[in-house]
Amino acid sequence: MKICLIGAGNLATQLGLALAEKGHQLVQVWSRTQKSASELASKLNCPYTTEISLISSDTDIYIVAISDTALASVLSQRNWNDTLVVHTAGSTPMSILAPYCNNYGVFYPFQTFTITKKVEFDQIPVCIEANSPRNLNVLKELAQSISQNIKFIDSDQRQQIHLAAVFACNFVNHFYAIGEELLREKGIDFEILKPLILETASKITSQSPASSQTGPASRNDSIVIDKHLSMLTNHPDLKNLYKQISERIIQSHK
Amino acid sequence: MKICLIGAGNLATQLGLALAEKGHQLVQVWSRTQKSASELASKLNCPYTTEISLISSDTDIYIVAISDTALASVLSQRNWNDTLVVHTAGSTPMSILAPYCNNYGVFYPFQTFTITKKVEFDQIPVCIEANSPRNLNVLKELAQSISQNIKFIDSDQRQQIHLAAVFACNFVNHFYAIGEELLREKGIDFEILKPLILETASKITSQSPASSQTGPASRNDSIVIDKHLSMLTNHPDLKNLYKQISERIIQSHK
Repeated sequence: MKICLIGAGNLATQLGLALAEKGHQLVQVWSRTQKSASELASKLNCPYTTEISLISSDTDIYIVAISDTALASVLSQRNWNDTLVVHTAGSTPMSILAPYCNNYGVFYPFQTFTITKKVEFDQIPVCIEANSPRNLNVLKELAQSISQNIKFIDSDQRQQIHLAAVFACNFVNHFYAIGEELLREKGIDFEILKPLILETASKITSQSPASSQTGPASRNDSIVIDKHLSMLTNHPDLKNLYKQISERIIQSHK
Repeated sequence: MKICLIGAGNLATQLGLALAEKGHQLVQVWSRTQKSASELASKLNCPYTTEISLISSDTDIYIVAISDTALASVLSQRNWNDTLVVHTAGSTPMSILAPYCNNYGVFYPFQTFTITKKVEFDQIPVCIEANSPRNLNVLKELAQSISQNIKFIDSDQRQQIHLAAVFACNFVNHFYAIGEELLREKGIDFEILKPLILETASKITSQSPASSQTGPASRNDSIVIDKHLSMLTNHPDLKNLYKQISERIIQSHK
């Protein structure tokens, strides 16, 4: 397929690379900033523009991978005619595209992306939704060209999936960072936590996380919990989080 | 070495199996409950007892892997003579052993253990501490027989490591469970989150978590954050956590 990428951030970069690798023709990259547009275009070996009016019409699909806040503003500045337009946002309903396009949908690869880390798309769930069976079929074929894991997910479900991911991925990563910070205070290298972090994640492949909870709160070990709370006296925000999360774990083990 | 295991829980089980596999002689298992004592003893093909007075004296080391709350009570009920006694607890100082033993230390394999999931000890950090250089050397040799990753960690550092692990492992696992719970509410299988969870963990091997934070809070995307908060109206505790953690991420990205 001929694909025009609107956006050049983490998701646009990794998705663009995966699509190019599977033989799709990346016809153009648009980004508001010249630097990111040119960087991604050079990776994909295709032209780029920073002008919305100069976005190519010679494409089968526009994949709009920009921030939720910029979405409506960018979409409103151009006539998309009958070309299929999809956004890639977790928490934005498909209907946001309705005022601007005749053929539209959502193409949401459910993964965390960073510009510098290559991602294997093969097993990534790609959540798709479209305003017609014909458009859904186009998205299905596009998704199948990069992944074996296609999910038909409506806007309401996708929003919930995104919310679940904020807890299970974004907040989890922040808790890794908290661990790093606490170790640094005592001059201990973050390295020591890595096997534990990897094993904790790996456990979900064989056990439900609710049933495999470990740690002081799951044993309701008040001696250790109180000791940890006293160690967090200089971090009132962490002390608060520690209390609330431990309380949730204790309740869920009753 | 001849090893006597005091305790038969998650850690005792996995550590016992790893030590037996490396050719150590497990001489006996003690546990308060007959069921867990006999189950672990049968896995290790050794005798067991539930009587503290019947714990064998024919051993080179006692590895005490019981809850922090039970530690002092069990230790006080027997004369350990000059045999080396180690505990395996993260947040209990080595000095708790001083009133009961002449030779003592800490042997803390830094990993999350469940009875049913076999763990490869090879890369697990084993944190050791002892009351004399001679005892430390014994623990070093024992640790090296199961892992290539030995750390000399004092009680103060070990306590901090344990605290970091509560955030980066125990709380993380609870956040996986929250993700599972949120998906279940909309009839979505937890399966869809697994690639994301594994990738999020895998990223720490190549990037510092503080620098690879993604998600709405890292972009200060107030539209998505507000939408998520409104979706959590029926979960006031989760709404509270969402707010506090997002605020921490926003602050750390300023």
